[in-house]
Amino acid sequence: MGKVYLIGAGPGAADLITVRGARLLGLADVVLHDALVEPAMLEYAPHARKIAVGKRCGQLSTAQQFINKQIVDAAQEHAVVVRLKGGDPMLFGRADEEMRALEAAGIEYEVVPGITAALASAAALKRSLTLRGVSRSVALATHSRAADSEAIREQVNADSLVFYMGRDSGPEIAQQLIDAGRDGLTPVAIVEACSTARERMLTLTLSELASGLAQQWLDASQPSLLMIGQAFAARVGQEEVSSLEALLSAA
Amino acid sequence: MGKVYLIGAGPGAADLITVRGARLLGLADVVLHDALVEPAMLEYAPHARKIAVGKRCGQLSTAQQFINKQIVDAAQEHAVVVRLKGGDPMLFGRADEEMRALEAAGIEYEVVPGITAALASAAALKRSLTLRGVSRSVALATHSRAADSEAIREQVNADSLVFYMGRDSGPEIAQQLIDAGRDGLTPVAIVEACSTARERMLTLTLSELASGLAQQWLDASQPSLLMIGQAFAARVGQEEVSSLEALLSAA
Repeated sequence: MGKVYLIGAGPGAADLITVRGARLLGLADVVLHDALVEPAMLEYAPHARKIAVGKRCGQLSTAQQFINKQIVDAAQEHAVVVRLKGGDPMLFGRADEEMRALEAAGIEYEVVPGITAALASAAALKRSLTLRGVSRSVALATHSRAADSEAIREQVNADSLVFYMGRDSGPEIAQQLIDAGRDGLTPVAIVEACSTARERMLTLTLSELASGLAQQWLDASQPSLLMIGQAFAARVGQEEVSSLEALLSAA
Repeated sequence: MGKVYLIGAGPGAADLITVRGARLLGLADVVLHDALVEPAMLEYAPHARKIAVGKRCGQLSTAQQFINKQIVDAAQEHAVVVRLKGGDPMLFGRADEEMRALEAAGIEYEVVPGITAALASAAALKRSLTLRGVSRSVALATHSRAADSEAIREQVNADSLVFYMGRDSGPEIAQQLIDAGRDGLTPVAIVEACSTARERMLTLTLSELASGLAQQWLDASQPSLLMIGQAFAARVGQEEVSSLEALLSAA
């Protein structure tokens, strides 16, 4: 019986994995990786058999059960098995189901954390998620959270709000926050394909997000992160960050 | 004029820094590091002058201004300056003040994200911060947030709650959450000195945390993280995680 390492690959760039994660990839016999993992990341594992598992956005339960079985099967045949997951395994990663499958099969495992998109996006934007006296808490949520019947503000509340996989529901999330009392002028940042060559950043207001005008800017084939709060106010002199206003006046 | 890299050192273990962070440390002429950074981390920077800055818990403004000045001064004398911060620079890290000081001085800088304690603690506990259908959002906050006059539930709300630097205010936070309607049986995990040789983990309930009984277990010299929510329920067969109940019956 082998040992399984659930490793967070981080946001995309190959060098944003941890030193521990890269070292374990080098020892791996088999790597089962998400579709979101960049190909350059797999170069850390030159000797391993690489198996792409999982879908890009959301997985059916049956697909997850099949992944669980693939991991368990791999550990019964190989000494070092890496399950490489985009971002951090413990945040919106379905790691719990994989850990329980490993426990049920009596297979030893360890979890190696990864840089989650919220941290990498804040670094790319050069905006701190928390600001002394302004933003003292951060909530991380997914778009499904917004679709519930209760008001979004009652479910998820903090000074800074970060929504993973919020591309399609951005306008709805924004409108719910405005209805719940957030100022329409609250700054919003959208970071797409964070840390990759395809990275793009846009700043706008909550009202502009609600209007749906930003949707034409988004690339449906890329992951994107929605960041809402005073901490994400646009700052002058940052050429790498577009403003929606500038995009619209140029169009 | 040199370039400054604000790098997240991660939770403690030297190999939980990113590959990018470790590589840049190797190029550094000067490293200005937090007191929280483990000595082994500095071995990535064999040629750099190392300067310890900052206090362990909380910094006076004057101290922060002095750190800002030290970073700017270093960049005016050296090509590669690393500001190495515990955890992630963008989360409870006062990075904003340092970035603004660099911008005001016209010094180029980049931010390299780090593994924040919430992710590393979840990995150590083998508990996912989010659980499909159970915990779909996470809020990260600090203890000062709890000391405000408004009810904690109105300020910070999510399925999973993580409090940084919550050691002394744990009982107060727990009581406020119970008063605001959270079930006293809600699972709580405390992770101390995450990812270091001194790491310890304790599971208890929100009521037990409110009672103050867990405080005797905590080591005032170590950083600790408070994790509250159904996602952190104790699981059988984990010898590395103590339960308060077991500790009390052994005492």
